[in-house]
Amino acid sequence: MKQENQKNYVNALYLQSGGPTSVINASMKGVIDGFKDNSSGNLYFSLYGVDGLINDNIISLDSLDKSKLRKLEKTPGTFLGSARHRLKPFLEDDHEYLKILEVIKKYDIHLLILNGGNDSMDTGYKLNEYFKYINYPINVVGVPKTIDNDLMITDHTPGYGSASRFIVSALASIYLDNLAYRNGKINIVEVMGRDTGWLTASCVMLQTLGMEVDLVYIPESSFDENDFLVRVNDIYARKRRGMIVVSEGIKNSDGDFVLNNKATDSFNHVQLGGVGSYLANLITSKLNIKTRAVELSVLQRSYALQASNVDIEEAYTAGYIATLGKEFNVDGMVSFTREKNYSLNYSFIPFAEVANKIKYLPLKYYDEETKQIKKSFIRYIKPLLGSLKDFKYPIL
Amino acid sequence: MKQENQKNYVNALYLQSGGPTSVINASMKGVIDGFKDNSSGNLYFSLYGVDGLINDNIISLDSLDKSKLRKLEKTPGTFLGSARHRLKPFLEDDHEYLKILEVIKKYDIHLLILNGGNDSMDTGYKLNEYFKYINYPINVVGVPKTIDNDLMITDHTPGYGSASRFIVSALASIYLDNLAYRNGKINIVEVMGRDTGWLTASCVMLQTLGMEVDLVYIPESSFDENDFLVRVNDIYARKRRGMIVVSEGIKNSDGDFVLNNKATDSFNHVQLGGVGSYLANLITSKLNIKTRAVELSVLQRSYALQASNVDIEEAYTAGYIATLGKEFNVDGMVSFTREKNYSLNYSFIPFAEVANKIKYLPLKYYDEETKQIKKSFIRYIKPLLGSLKDFKYPIL
Repeated sequence: MKQENQKNYVNALYLQSGGPTSVINASMKGVIDGFKDNSSGNLYFSLYGVDGLINDNIISLDSLDKSKLRKLEKTPGTFLGSARHRLKPFLEDDHEYLKILEVIKKYDIHLLILNGGNDSMDTGYKLNEYFKYINYPINVVGVPKTIDNDLMITDHTPGYGSASRFIVSALASIYLDNLAYRNGKINIVEVMGRDTGWLTASCVMLQTLGMEVDLVYIPESSFDENDFLVRVNDIYARKRRGMIVVSEGIKNSDGDFVLNNKATDSFNHVQLGGVGSYLANLITSKLNIKTRAVELSVLQRSYALQASNVDIEEAYTAGYIATLGKEFNVDGMVSFTREKNYSLNYSFIPFAEVANKIKYLPLKYYDEETKQIKKSFIRYIKPLLGSLKDFKYPIL
Repeated sequence: MKQENQKNYVNALYLQSGGPTSVINASMKGVIDGFKDNSSGNLYFSLYGVDGLINDNIISLDSLDKSKLRKLEKTPGTFLGSARHRLKPFLEDDHEYLKILEVIKKYDIHLLILNGGNDSMDTGYKLNEYFKYINYPINVVGVPKTIDNDLMITDHTPGYGSASRFIVSALASIYLDNLAYRNGKINIVEVMGRDTGWLTASCVMLQTLGMEVDLVYIPESSFDENDFLVRVNDIYARKRRGMIVVSEGIKNSDGDFVLNNKATDSFNHVQLGGVGSYLANLITSKLNIKTRAVELSVLQRSYALQASNVDIEEAYTAGYIATLGKEFNVDGMVSFTREKNYSLNYSFIPFAEVANKIKYLPLKYYDEETKQIKKSFIRYIKPLLGSLKDFKYPIL
């Protein structure tokens, strides 16, 4: 922490964007602490993401009851509220940009911190370009956040470790539950992941707990129903039970979602969910095998009681470092580089390198023959999860 | 613990029966410790419940790797395997009874301990009656276990507190998740409970966390779709979000399950699941309001990472006390009586008082006007859950 007279005078504004994670509020705490340590001036918060910025729904840190901030690192949801709002390109329509500029001027903001995923980094990119275009002196900084782990460049994203840790803990519980009867079920566990299999791939950690996942399906590899049924039949004949982990966004060989559903959100994403139930029904009707579909649903991103300490710490640090954006005179997203023995380097990368882009799970981690995640993925994911010893259970 | 020469010589056999809970293995640990402290002789375990007893699938405590027993209290699932197997009345068909008797004689068992719910206590009842009928000197003792909390006489059942604690923790996470957007969703959380609303009623604890559950539906009260839709419409208009908690076994005014599904298990129970999705689809199609159905599924009974310490302790003690069945020359199920300031008394009650019977949630705890659980239920359930301070989150 700096002496008062060494602190940089700046007013900053922080907002949360996109879907909640277990640790986005840890980043908020990092922003608060980083700002207090290194800056004088006021820290403001926009409520409901960029909506608050457009509509002047702004509060200051000083107005917040301090007792509410104490547990912020371990609080799920988005404490300030969020939004999924896509700004139009400002050269086409600068209507909302002008409203934002008015608010930025009103509070004399010169550091804007957006905490979100690849859609939110699109907002960061557009605002950054706009402010440069009109020559307004403000630094725009992004703090990464997404359970999907699909941001380019950065080794991983805050939120991913905690969601994966919950998934592994849930799979371990479901695995033991399914050992109860001599004839068990085929459990199909549906995991979030519209475009990528990062979250699903975390199931490989069950190997380190002495448990087996029989089949894994991810959006990066095409899904074939007949092949699937042959495999399930064989697994059940052999073991009288089984565990299948599947991403919500798996696609067939034509590139269509296995479960088709027409509802879309404002980013034109198809709203999914339920492919696990679909596959369970398929197995029961075609093979007459008992199944259970379990959809981990929003608990993956919100069960902060099982958040990874490593993830909390990194999310906090990313927020802390973002507050130095003015001092370093930098724009862009805080990014992680992994060094030897899992020490992380933090740097800033241009928004253009992450906005709207998707980092897929490399297929080197997926075994197309066995439909399983390869052991080599353990080395990537293990350090993100914290200790799993609490769910290393004895098995008879 | 007794001196060796004060110990009662007896061989005992313990088995697990019915669905898993987070704490049934804590009862097993109690049985092991109670037996070691107070008895000489051998302790045996039947694998896969009464199936192991019929088919001589028996192991001894001495044959078990001791390191596996160390974490038993916190291990979900049924460590020994379980079964749902209904014995026929022995006067009609004593085929399986004769096979069981052979195994009991082979291992010279004079104390039989069954750990399970009301179906398992039916097995205890029938075996107890059979052994009396043939005048075979054995005590048959039950250790209660069911997340459903639907056993007669006993104040509550081991497993219920932990399942409820997980439900409350999950609801708190889901509640915060749903605060993210200015326009939230109607979340419908489906909780286990084929016949009774005990588990669902645990949602009343959200009041103590500063959170609201808007509507609650339990099997003990009939469900009306039109009334439901009117209420949901009103809630969404007022709050732009909502939380509804519903038992899987809710019924309409004709007494039929709201979600009809013809599959049945060997006890002729209808296999349920999915009523939350059904209601969510109903809301979306009739009211055009965004919904999300979350089925807590098997995590309710298997997410031992969130087990209640009080529940673990009581499950352990119930197992421990069961090992005294021979010494006290008693048959029947260990039962809890609640005294002032929540001290528990443990006693034995006849199997006939619990076998096949169902204890419903008293309707004094349900407000038919508001479709909510009354505050008075907090006094009943709170002591079973352990401290909830970890999920008392700050809300802006």
